Amino acid sequence: MKILITSGGTTEKIDSVRGITNHATGSLGKHIAEIFLEKGYQVTLVTTKQAVKPNEHPLLTVHTITNVESLLTTLEPLVKNHDVFIHSMAVSDYTPVYMTGLSEVESAHRVSDLLQRHNTETKISSKDDYQVLFLKKTPKVISLVNTWNPDITLIGFKLLVGVSKEELFAIARKSLQKNKARYIVANDLTEIDENHHHAYMLDESNVYEADTKESIASLIFERVTNHD
Amino acid sequence: MKILITSGGTTEKIDSVRGITNHATGSLGKHIAEIFLEKGYQVTLVTTKQAVKPNEHPLLTVHTITNVESLLTTLEPLVKNHDVFIHSMAVSDYTPVYMTGLSEVESAHRVSDLLQRHNTETKISSKDDYQVLFLKKTPKVISLVNTWNPDITLIGFKLLVGVSKEELFAIARKSLQKNKARYIVANDLTEIDENHHHAYMLDESNVYEADTKESIASLIFERVTNHD
Repeated sequence: MKILITSGGTTEKIDSVRGITNHATGSLGKHIAEIFLEKGYQVTLVTTKQAVKPNEHPLLTVHTITNVESLLTTLEPLVKNHDVFIHSMAVSDYTPVYMTGLSEVESAHRVSDLLQRHNTETKISSKDDYQVLFLKKTPKVISLVNTWNPDITLIGFKLLVGVSKEELFAIARKSLQKNKARYIVANDLTEIDENHHHAYMLDESNVYEADTKESIASLIFERVTNHD
Repeated sequence: MKILITSGGTTEKIDSVRGITNHATGSLGKHIAEIFLEKGYQVTLVTTKQAVKPNEHPLLTVHTITNVESLLTTLEPLVKNHDVFIHSMAVSDYTPVYMTGLSEVESAHRVSDLLQRHNTETKISSKDDYQVLFLKKTPKVISLVNTWNPDITLIGFKLLVGVSKEELFAIARKSLQKNKARYIVANDLTEIDENHHHAYMLDESNVYEADTKESIASLIFERVTNHD
């Protein structure tokens, strides 16, 4: 059984010096990778340069990506030849299209015309008091997994902020069905700090719970290997 | 002589999970700090969590900041009690004000009205195909240094992308005058990679040149201690 894990957060470039980053340390993905490696499984980790990573290990292969585009290109062949995919990476949901001063937006005949423009400078000028950045939705990586490999066991993640347990569960179960995931790990940013990480792991009828990154990793390991 | 150094790049939050980051590893600032520490100077380093840092050292104090606001609050008292300020940090020139779907911008009576709005959700919804992020200029940290401490020896940095040497020099000399800096270190992103870092160090009448981060650090050390 080959295990594919993503960790860290993607960055979408605005220009050659600035980018929009999804904050994620990569430490949960590191714990998950470590437990599978310890138990003798072959692990492929897709992560970012900034993310914390497990130590080198004979069973570990690491691929480094930057943005959603490079994530998609890297993942497609990997999803096709792995048995389990644990997608803990924080993926950018929008990517920059065009950045300009407020005055160009105010004087545009139709604001949507600006979506056809592109920045030609490599470092966008910083003269205006206000700037406007147009962004477009990125492809939802998790929704493509089943089309790439319908047989893979998919573990998805859902991070929300300050919602009720009911709302968290409802959104997680929707993701479970929509993406044909085996489990969704649902967590709330307000319940995550340096030492704690509260999460629920849900399928259609069960809910498992964990309180630290280590115990989330153990729980995922147990659930995944239980279905061997 | 007490040396204050900034390194790394600031991040301005969009919401609780996303931010705009100025890419900078912190490695030039690390080299500069190390050379002053080796020579027995007291060094204060203002940097970010993500940046690479020198090893612990009895003469080194490290302050960690995130965004421009925390940088300003941290720097003001430090600039007042240091003799030299080497400002190599990549500072965000814009900070998010409001993020919304394209439709709200299209239907706004005046686009500038949206600058008064604020996001209330902690994680901004990602339903729209296009989103629009409004940003406002941040205070120019380097321009405040002289008002905080007119006696400090200020070394500023100017990073441009793909410009001629003449343009780079002209912009660096303008910054020299405007910010009452002792030197500006001017560099072009197209001349920086893993192993090389080409930079010019300019004052009103002289130009010094270096080709690696180590030699830039040595050059700054020589120039600064030359004026003891």
